[in-house]
Amino acid sequence: MSDFAKIGAAVIGTGFIGSVHLQMLRRLGVDVRGVLGSSPERGAQAAASLGVAQAYAGLDDLLADERVDVVHVTSPNHAHYPQVKAILGAGKHVVCEKPLAMTSAQSAEMVEIARASGKVAAVCYNIRFYPLNQQAHGMVRAGDLGEIRFVTGHYHQDWLARPTDWNWRLRSEMGGALRSVGDIGTHWVDLTSFVTGLKAEAVMAELATFIPERQRPKGPVATFSSGAGETETVAIDTDDAAMIVIRYEGGARGVMSTSQINTGRKNSLQWDVAGSKASAAWDSETPDHLFIGHRDRANETLMRDFTLMNPTGTAAATLPPGHVEGFGDSFHAFFRAVYRDVAAGGRQEGSTWATFEDGHYEMRFCDAVLKSAKEGRWVRLDEI
Amino acid sequence: MSDFAKIGAAVIGTGFIGSVHLQMLRRLGVDVRGVLGSSPERGAQAAASLGVAQAYAGLDDLLADERVDVVHVTSPNHAHYPQVKAILGAGKHVVCEKPLAMTSAQSAEMVEIARASGKVAAVCYNIRFYPLNQQAHGMVRAGDLGEIRFVTGHYHQDWLARPTDWNWRLRSEMGGALRSVGDIGTHWVDLTSFVTGLKAEAVMAELATFIPERQRPKGPVATFSSGAGETETVAIDTDDAAMIVIRYEGGARGVMSTSQINTGRKNSLQWDVAGSKASAAWDSETPDHLFIGHRDRANETLMRDFTLMNPTGTAAATLPPGHVEGFGDSFHAFFRAVYRDVAAGGRQEGSTWATFEDGHYEMRFCDAVLKSAKEGRWVRLDEI
Amino acid sequence: MSDFAKIGAAVIGTGFIGSVHLQMLRRLGVDVRGVLGSSPERGAQAAASLGVAQAYAGLDDLLADERVDVVHVTSPNHAHYPQVKAILGAGKHVVCEKPLAMTSAQSAEMVEIARASGKVAAVCYNIRFYPLNQQAHGMVRAGDLGEIRFVTGHYHQDWLARPTDWNWRLRSEMGGALRSVGDIGTHWVDLTSFVTGLKAEAVMAELATFIPERQRPKGPVATFSSGAGETETVAIDTDDAAMIVIRYEGGARGVMSTSQINTGRKNSLQWDVAGSKASAAWDSETPDHLFIGHRDRANETLMRDFTLMNPTGTAAATLPPGHVEGFGDSFHAFFRAVYRDVAAGGRQEGSTWATFEDGHYEMRFCDAVLKSAKEGRWVRLDEI
Amino acid sequence: MSDFAKIGAAVIGTGFIGSVHLQMLRRLGVDVRGVLGSSPERGAQAAASLGVAQAYAGLDDLLADERVDVVHVTSPNHAHYPQVKAILGAGKHVVCEKPLAMTSAQSAEMVEIARASGKVAAVCYNIRFYPLNQQAHGMVRAGDLGEIRFVTGHYHQDWLARPTDWNWRLRSEMGGALRSVGDIGTHWVDLTSFVTGLKAEAVMAELATFIPERQRPKGPVATFSSGAGETETVAIDTDDAAMIVIRYEGGARGVMSTSQINTGRKNSLQWDVAGSKASAAWDSETPDHLFIGHRDRANETLMRDFTLMNPTGTAAATLPPGHVEGFGDSFHAFFRAVYRDVAAGGRQEGSTWATFEDGHYEMRFCDAVLKSAKEGRWVRLDEI
Repeated sequence: MSDFAKIGAAVIGTGFIGSVHLQMLRRLGVDVRGVLGSSPERGAQAAASLGVAQAYAGLDDLLADERVDVVHVTSPNHAHYPQVKAILGAGKHVVCEKPLAMTSAQSAEMVEIARASGKVAAVCYNIRFYPLNQQAHGMVRAGDLGEIRFVTGHYHQDWLARPTDWNWRLRSEMGGALRSVGDIGTHWVDLTSFVTGLKAEAVMAELATFIPERQRPKGPVATFSSGAGETETVAIDTDDAAMIVIRYEGGARGVMSTSQINTGRKNSLQWDVAGSKASAAWDSETPDHLFIGHRDRANETLMRDFTLMNPTGTAAATLPPGHVEGFGDSFHAFFRAVYRDVAAGGRQEGSTWATFEDGHYEMRFCDAVLKSAKEGRWVRLDEI
Repeated sequence: MSDFAKIGAAVIGTGFIGSVHLQMLRRLGVDVRGVLGSSPERGAQAAASLGVAQAYAGLDDLLADERVDVVHVTSPNHAHYPQVKAILGAGKHVVCEKPLAMTSAQSAEMVEIARASGKVAAVCYNIRFYPLNQQAHGMVRAGDLGEIRFVTGHYHQDWLARPTDWNWRLRSEMGGALRSVGDIGTHWVDLTSFVTGLKAEAVMAELATFIPERQRPKGPVATFSSGAGETETVAIDTDDAAMIVIRYEGGARGVMSTSQINTGRKNSLQWDVAGSKASAAWDSETPDHLFIGHRDRANETLMRDFTLMNPTGTAAATLPPGHVEGFGDSFHAFFRAVYRDVAAGGRQEGSTWATFEDGHYEMRFCDAVLKSAKEGRWVRLDEI
Repeated sequence: MSDFAKIGAAVIGTGFIGSVHLQMLRRLGVDVRGVLGSSPERGAQAAASLGVAQAYAGLDDLLADERVDVVHVTSPNHAHYPQVKAILGAGKHVVCEKPLAMTSAQSAEMVEIARASGKVAAVCYNIRFYPLNQQAHGMVRAGDLGEIRFVTGHYHQDWLARPTDWNWRLRSEMGGALRSVGDIGTHWVDLTSFVTGLKAEAVMAELATFIPERQRPKGPVATFSSGAGETETVAIDTDDAAMIVIRYEGGARGVMSTSQINTGRKNSLQWDVAGSKASAAWDSETPDHLFIGHRDRANETLMRDFTLMNPTGTAAATLPPGHVEGFGDSFHAFFRAVYRDVAAGGRQEGSTWATFEDGHYEMRFCDAVLKSAKEGRWVRLDEI
Repeated sequence: MSDFAKIGAAVIGTGFIGSVHLQMLRRLGVDVRGVLGSSPERGAQAAASLGVAQAYAGLDDLLADERVDVVHVTSPNHAHYPQVKAILGAGKHVVCEKPLAMTSAQSAEMVEIARASGKVAAVCYNIRFYPLNQQAHGMVRAGDLGEIRFVTGHYHQDWLARPTDWNWRLRSEMGGALRSVGDIGTHWVDLTSFVTGLKAEAVMAELATFIPERQRPKGPVATFSSGAGETETVAIDTDDAAMIVIRYEGGARGVMSTSQINTGRKNSLQWDVAGSKASAAWDSETPDHLFIGHRDRANETLMRDFTLMNPTGTAAATLPPGHVEGFGDSFHAFFRAVYRDVAAGGRQEGSTWATFEDGHYEMRFCDAVLKSAKEGRWVRLDEI
């Protein structure tokens, strides 16, 4: 970790996920030079409460800081596109929260800009960096599962299960036309694409809004806090749940669902990949266990264990086996991989963090899902 | 169980599932008077090896036995229609293995015949009779889950995962155009319909044949035994796996998959039902545990426990809590319910075994799935 | 199963476990000729309700029935000794519920009588016959786990967790001085001895009575039913729970606990056996899964699967993998093994059902536990 | 977290656990001013590789740094006693790795010194700070489980399962007479004491050394790395496993085992606490789930969820429900609690981190275990 103290970072956004970025950068020993809030006042307040040395007055101020090498973008989705362009334009590396952009036209342009810049440009698909997901990626590459045939799973939550649950993401004009697909479904899409190496050729999707009207607080409300006081009834047009059937290039098939209304499921991402030799499955709520399914011998449960994992799995692990690694550790492993490449001057052969190309693929996938659901038909990604 | 010894039964079919019927009838104390094999010689052989008093020479012979009150049909699918018609025509009760018929035209006719007969006419959806599935049915009826919104799950196996795996069901002319959907998917469809009380309005389906060519033994081969000797390459046109999106009447949605090629999954049927109040989920490989998911308190795991279950759940249970009940016990509970109705002269108020109407619904569901997959579009069940 | 219809059986005892014996004998196709109740009236009533042809007037009546080859003893514990002696004296085979006797002096004598008789004399340790316990037994014999070092586990229930729970077993004069150890602990002791092949050399035990006074109904009360009406306070001197440390012959060690007051644990028997090569573990509430633990590769979960098990495991299995086998099936497999030996005229090479020697060992183990707990010291089994 | 940046810390020890301390202090935003290695050279090397500003030349050097407020002691066990005395003597707060000392005489003295100092003096029983362990502690305090009756569980690992596994802890002169009990058993003892509020009155213990001879590398070997080259056979006198029966003050009972040779178990700490109202259980390998067992209603699985936990549980949580927290997070939560008290000037009412009194209790418990095992009898803790 010796080089990391020499790398300067700044974080845009001071919400929950911004604080996770900050904590994990500090854990790595990166020199976090400052934060940028949604306003100078908020930034200053956050800097004080988080113990960060400075709050930038604005993006220009941040970009002018010559000791900042890497900028983390955790601002609202609509800000990603202009901020990332400015950051890369200023010659800095960037780590951008998902989704990469608001439209696939934007993300297509960002791919080009990133490519031209030669800088590290990563998208925060942190779930890849649970070591056993890296392990599964390595297993597929090595042919351990044979030819991939069938990919199934889901990403289910319950935090929007009640008509009185409110969040800005519920409104399409704020969070985009896709909600459960955009917020959590894209994690599943990125993860399974990473594990299997497969890309979707076409999708058939159905979206459902089970709670067509919700109670919006009239006053301001922060995420995860219940608003007291008066509410008003608002019509909802974003998806509480989605069902997506996938035809992958090369003949594999998949099916998955998303939901934000499945009571009792807090953050349940599961994938199951069946290959011609063996299968594998993983559950985000018990991330240190990987199921490996066999036909001709007993099934296996591989624990996150550096004496038993392949090189990609081992590289992402930090703790001895049985000392559970969690959500925070996945960011730690992700940033460690990114900063190694920053220290090396750019993405290295064999790096496994999500690129802007990956982020753009997820944007196109979402566009195809939306089109399919609206038109009730199969939509090819090359239509997008 | 006092009345059961006075009821005479006969079993058509002497294969694996026929022997399960026989064992569970005997366990109940029913007087199993004889079996009917695929030929008089096979029947005689089976009667001897199973310790049954007689083998009928043919269906007429069986139907002429006045002491036979109930006939169990476990013959190949194409025989169900003519045999059931003859049985009901002879004034006997019938318990027919699934699928009820080869076509929904046949099953429609069988519904009418059964209705006119006034006899007990049950379809073998035994999985309903795991006590916790009965419990879930009762919970939904009582409103414990609120309004049902989202139904997800799968039925995955691995016994046809290799190109050298062979079974007559692989050929559409023998087992019907749908394989994984017909063999196992219908169990999921029946079970979730039973639990939720919902019927599908329309389906969108994708079928996949990952192993387009298989090796068929040139000589005869019994189910579950590997054929020695020469094989020939045969093209396969039935589904190794299926993905089905469902629009239920009333606005609920569902998605499920079937597979016979997911290595390591032996007989994995899972369902997950999310309601507006709570959710529930069940896994056939740990059938004595029912997940109940909450938003406002801890999730629950209800064990099969007659001190804790509702009346429908308790009625299907036999053993004290913690003494696991399995697949055989589900047949035992199913037959116990059916024979109580036989003893009572016909289906009673509150009975929960699958009727011919239920069996006909599954046939229509399958027809819609096949049409949807062929035409790549949503198909309404009322088109069938 | 052809021979079983020619074998006649009778069941002594008409309670819960007697009905399980009856059901599973019928399932096997054994000719159950009659039952013997605690009184002629109760026997007649049970015969009628269970659909059994006859109720014997008494043991002599039963023993005089020449068509009865095997007698199942499910009467209260104190009756086992005289009944078994009479049965073997009459030249019939016997299957006796556990515990074999009230004292190890009785059981020692019964071992001799059984040996001299040459008849099949089995003790009902049915849990051995969950197929994966047979599998584990075979694995240890084959050296798959290496030298056995450490055996841990428990048998915990909750049905006596409340001061108002009442059962005759609570009183030492009725059920014996040991309650949780005698009722359920002996299952664990027999099972782990069967799996590992090890016998205890000495034990160190602690017994606990957490509920020193209970409410006994003044009127009669049946097992598992709550008595209405008045109660009286009774002092309890039997063990609600026990803790037992074991020194095995040859140097292995073990530790286990029993409890009938662990709320939420319905029937939780777990064992974990660590060997020098690998380890294995099993849980009675998910009996179709066997954990196999490794140091140098991923852990395994072996499902009950006749394509993957060793010969002892396969011999005890009935259903295809994934179709769960439960408590009833373990009796079915146990009786199938016993009756094969009955048909063959006596215990065969390789038979794995518990003998009277096994039952006598459990009696001596219990005596040593009681002595150790009273004297607060290690007690060798050869002191008994 | 605002105050933490103003608090200066130093870490003694640069091994695995020292790096965990460092990472989690940084994550909190604490100002880690320097490290002290086992030699000035090693310290300098570690400071460079970890990106820490300075390496102290020695303990005096460290203590002379006025900007250091808190010293973390992660040095070998024998160094704890003199270092902690010096640190408290210098007027600084101390966080000491377990075990607190080499003997209970030392730890008794350290308790007095800490008390007199008025400083924060914490022992690193981090496992308390998995939020659901804090939750369980709060539940017991609130009476949710009723009176505690029976405590069972284990701490099993496999990293010393082979005769070729070598570590300095294997030798009693280096790691103390107790190995598995001292290294991992004390975690279980502290944790269950914390959860239940109970202290042991007497213990009965058995120790086992299954691998009496091991191969020690002739050259130096680092922990977790396999030594190449020649080895020599060394006799081992420390415990591979232990079995401990516990009489708690007030009448509760317990039994637990430790093992470092159970293949497949990487870091399996489980506890199960049965109370008169309800029971609870926790497993370190799935730390975000707490089992709550009931007699009169369905069992519960409480996920780590700040909307559902009690105040002690919520205070230790960092991430939203379903985003798993792991081993590192337990240190983060532990240090956060300790540093809040540091900022407040001393331990606050309601603080739940382990004190030197707790550490001293564990020392006495170990002494009693050793004496009991040697003498084969019950040993009261007040004999120590």
